[in-house]
Amino acid sequence: MDKINAVITGVGGYVPDDVLTNEDISKMVDTTDEWIMTRVGIKERRILKGEGLGTSFMGIRAVNQLLEKTGTKPEEVEVLLTATSTPDHHFPTTSSIIAYHTGCVNAMTFDVQAGCSGFLYGLETGTNYIRSGRYKKVIVVAGDKMTAITDYTDRTTCPLFGDACGAVMLEPTIENYGVLDTLLRTNGEGYSHLIMKSGGSAYPPSYETVKNREHFVWQDGRYVFKYAVSYMADAAAEVAERNGLKDEDIAWVVPHQANLRIIDATARRLGVDPSKVMINIQKYGNTSAGTIPICLWEWEDKLKKGDNLILAAFGAGFTWGAIYLKWSYDGKKA
Amino acid sequence: MDKINAVITGVGGYVPDDVLTNEDISKMVDTTDEWIMTRVGIKERRILKGEGLGTSFMGIRAVNQLLEKTGTKPEEVEVLLTATSTPDHHFPTTSSIIAYHTGCVNAMTFDVQAGCSGFLYGLETGTNYIRSGRYKKVIVVAGDKMTAITDYTDRTTCPLFGDACGAVMLEPTIENYGVLDTLLRTNGEGYSHLIMKSGGSAYPPSYETVKNREHFVWQDGRYVFKYAVSYMADAAAEVAERNGLKDEDIAWVVPHQANLRIIDATARRLGVDPSKVMINIQKYGNTSAGTIPICLWEWEDKLKKGDNLILAAFGAGFTWGAIYLKWSYDGKKA
Repeated sequence: MDKINAVITGVGGYVPDDVLTNEDISKMVDTTDEWIMTRVGIKERRILKGEGLGTSFMGIRAVNQLLEKTGTKPEEVEVLLTATSTPDHHFPTTSSIIAYHTGCVNAMTFDVQAGCSGFLYGLETGTNYIRSGRYKKVIVVAGDKMTAITDYTDRTTCPLFGDACGAVMLEPTIENYGVLDTLLRTNGEGYSHLIMKSGGSAYPPSYETVKNREHFVWQDGRYVFKYAVSYMADAAAEVAERNGLKDEDIAWVVPHQANLRIIDATARRLGVDPSKVMINIQKYGNTSAGTIPICLWEWEDKLKKGDNLILAAFGAGFTWGAIYLKWSYDGKKA
Repeated sequence: MDKINAVITGVGGYVPDDVLTNEDISKMVDTTDEWIMTRVGIKERRILKGEGLGTSFMGIRAVNQLLEKTGTKPEEVEVLLTATSTPDHHFPTTSSIIAYHTGCVNAMTFDVQAGCSGFLYGLETGTNYIRSGRYKKVIVVAGDKMTAITDYTDRTTCPLFGDACGAVMLEPTIENYGVLDTLLRTNGEGYSHLIMKSGGSAYPPSYETVKNREHFVWQDGRYVFKYAVSYMADAAAEVAERNGLKDEDIAWVVPHQANLRIIDATARRLGVDPSKVMINIQKYGNTSAGTIPICLWEWEDKLKKGDNLILAAFGAGFTWGAIYLKWSYDGKKA
């Protein structure tokens, strides 16, 4: 039996139409465009408006586009998993909603949570379904409706987040393409430093938790920044090194988009030219599990078969890591 | 390369000490022991008491026991995933908390959600990590603190649920043991019939959602019952049939414990003697993702190498399915 690799055979994406600019935010809290741009490099972000619309609304659109671009019949999909920290509900899963509305009637579906590193964990999970030799079409959806958990009275966090969802199709190959190496790690010491305190089984919702604004993402920004820079850059560098990839061998770095300074640090650590780093944080902000697939979606037309990509992320947990991905097709799928 | 199977090499479990009896419940809502026993077959359930204690509290204890029973050093664990619909928080993940407090410092960790079918989805996911040939020690934790989302003013649902967590170790083998066949499915038509409406990105927590008691599990019991009976029994029968397993070949049926009548229907459909069906619903109630591993944990001393087990579950989504598992060791690990 030949070793099976999982390759990405298509990318779909969706960002909402509504834009929230730094100017808009400066009317809500005491901040300025200059402060936000200097600290995190975000100019605007997309927000999903509409009563009762959760992450699945974006995931359905990303998956529909993916099915169309890859010429896949929905009933052929065997696994559909969604990496998100902002599921529509605790249950049913966001995956089951997306599968239903996209016609993926034969898929097994489940959600995966790993904070902002969700796409990498989802990609490695989908990859192992493919590697097993038992599944031929696996969709990994990843994204978040971060505005549902953003506290628009907190000037330190409300400029950071936006809404988006991406989706990739994974299929098997015995050629040397696709997800070739993965390094994912966790350090629970990060627990209290990047957290949504209430709403789970530890602190279920109550009048008190709502009053105390505990259903929003909270972070100790300085602490998180320090760990994000070193863990994300280290993981990316280790994956590159153990695969013998020097800076000139790397076609693209695809970093989680949380902060421009973290992205820059990762790129510097890899020694790659800034022109080879996918950056769209200025337009979308941090869309959590959505950032990396949305980058792949926007850069798809520039990608070539054989390109070596280093994906890197960091998130709550802390969880973090990097994946070495060899791209398997040229340009944009129609 | 030989085909790699994933075998369960040990089981850990934890149920809280505190017991909530039907008598206790009949003091909260208008019901009786007889009504509950006749309808669902539950006599009592365990409940996790204590401010701020979530599902991880039970998961940590189940994993510690598992590590001890299997003689595994925590730093050897490469993947730790937790199937739960009641994570401590939306983030960080329950898995990252469990890994931290059990010393699994080298594990990648993520949560999986698939409602009450969570253990089967988690088991298949962990199995595919093993099948990939790249991971040698994978822990699948599964369980729920259902009492955190149970409405003790609703007589139709509050008798149903309890708290528990189980954990299994998965390791590779090239022998014909372990997870040999899996059938998992989703039907999003079940969406509104078994749901926790609020608390996710579709309906974030507010004074209104708390007031309307929307942070609890709600179900259309009759509708769910009908689908649970047919989907769970059908999946179990199909898996048995396509593996050539007749009733006499099946050593144990391990059904999700939601309702004694659903369990009986599944056993009847497989034609197996009631003595070969693991049932502990009378003691623990429905612990969601916890039911199946807690059965394996309680029956471990009776299991023999080569025993054919059919696992079957049904839950929100709807998600459901069955797994054919060939047991790989004799009796209880010390």
